[in-house]
Amino acid sequence: MEIISIGNELLIGKTLNTNAYWMAKRATSLGIMVKRITIVSDDVDEIANAVCEALQRKPRFIITTGGLGPTFDDKTLEGIAKALNIKLEVNEKALKMVREKYEAFAKAGRIEKAELTPPRVKMAKLPKNSEPLPNPVGTAPAMIIDVHKTFLIALPGVPSEMEAIFEQSVAPLLGKEAGENMFFETSIYADDVMESVLAPLIDQTMHDNSYVYIKSHPKGEEGKPHMEIHFSTTAKDSKTAKDRLGKAIIQLSELIEKNGGKVKAKKRS
Amino acid sequence: MEIISIGNELLIGKTLNTNAYWMAKRATSLGIMVKRITIVSDDVDEIANAVCEALQRKPRFIITTGGLGPTFDDKTLEGIAKALNIKLEVNEKALKMVREKYEAFAKAGRIEKAELTPPRVKMAKLPKNSEPLPNPVGTAPAMIIDVHKTFLIALPGVPSEMEAIFEQSVAPLLGKEAGENMFFETSIYADDVMESVLAPLIDQTMHDNSYVYIKSHPKGEEGKPHMEIHFSTTAKDSKTAKDRLGKAIIQLSELIEKNGGKVKAKKRS
Repeated sequence: MEIISIGNELLIGKTLNTNAYWMAKRATSLGIMVKRITIVSDDVDEIANAVCEALQRKPRFIITTGGLGPTFDDKTLEGIAKALNIKLEVNEKALKMVREKYEAFAKAGRIEKAELTPPRVKMAKLPKNSEPLPNPVGTAPAMIIDVHKTFLIALPGVPSEMEAIFEQSVAPLLGKEAGENMFFETSIYADDVMESVLAPLIDQTMHDNSYVYIKSHPKGEEGKPHMEIHFSTTAKDSKTAKDRLGKAIIQLSELIEKNGGKVKAKKRS
Repeated sequence: MEIISIGNELLIGKTLNTNAYWMAKRATSLGIMVKRITIVSDDVDEIANAVCEALQRKPRFIITTGGLGPTFDDKTLEGIAKALNIKLEVNEKALKMVREKYEAFAKAGRIEKAELTPPRVKMAKLPKNSEPLPNPVGTAPAMIIDVHKTFLIALPGVPSEMEAIFEQSVAPLLGKEAGENMFFETSIYADDVMESVLAPLIDQTMHDNSYVYIKSHPKGEEGKPHMEIHFSTTAKDSKTAKDRLGKAIIQLSELIEKNGGKVKAKKRS
């Protein structure tokens, strides 16, 4: 799976990309591996190029976030249409979703008229042959299209909307694809051992535990080495995963203590 | 400029990519535009592909973060060497930097021996014809290489190290490239106006203020529209920037109030 995040605010350091972080965590927990995350600006060509490049890598899923709203700089669907060389057209199902939202707003007295102005109709213009996904929280529908065995899915950038649509319409698809595989992870912490000393110990433990991936993350400051050591594995059931991770943790802990380090289950506070 | 962030932890939703956020903010403030941010895993081919693709877009700068340490999964320099089709070799200047760090650690009693074990020498193996950049905070040197008018720079992933090397060795290069251009930005906030009503007002204001970019960010919840409206411009001096932004803010504020919205200088708390 790949994620494409769209928005100038992500490229000028105004907004931290918590959407991609959240989605990567959720996809991983569902057993799907995220292979790449790309951030591009609100520019039709930049979006189209990023989508084309991702499609060439043939992932099972490409999920975009951002750029589905009513303003001029919401260009994601235009970019996707350009990448696929197909036209945008008013999708009747999407238009119905948008209309019903504004009718509800008008009924609640929030807006005077529910009329479908051009910026509102814009949100219902989808690439031909795509399907709208309902937005339980906001007005802009999301979109899914099947492109030669890749599901290309466009979600909004407002986090509450993105998360709600993901849970309702995307998570079930990812879960189905992942089958029974699940991702398991845990960390231990080590004091008084430098990363250059740890390196060959991790090599050896990974060599002896072929389904376990181990990565060290230096967390200390100069003069106070403190390492987070992250263990992960993908398995069909939690017992297998726990056995594998446990075996690797015991082996590496012993090696670290032989080399003068101290192993802890918790982060140094 | 492009940023390539390297690390499995960024793709499994374990770590939020604050490095790219920080660097994008700093580069923008120095007057350099970040066009793309890519995250890939600790895999030589993935890194090499991302670097090759970025080089083909011919940005003035490509900056990678992560993967410079002593462990087996620190593969950034190997990936870069593969992308450039050149060899990694022990760089004498880099080796001197690494050696001096460990000698200082040994002197301070933090390690028994300062010997240059293979994981330590690994940090000094750089692509041929590249230059090491000193790391004032940690042990792994950074690297810079000039590839047909693109500066390709590799920084570590530990935030304090990345930031220190950026300030010391990278910021001066970016500042020189940017010349006198600086980025200016400010936001106003609007209540009681929906994004679909705001859209044509922003269009009109941007049309009348050609150097100002305006983007709306919905911040409210269902039933309580609250918009951040972000104004930005690039200019050679702050007076020009302030004049431009001020003119656009006044025009858009008047349009919003005519349409029943309320404009505020601060975020609704």
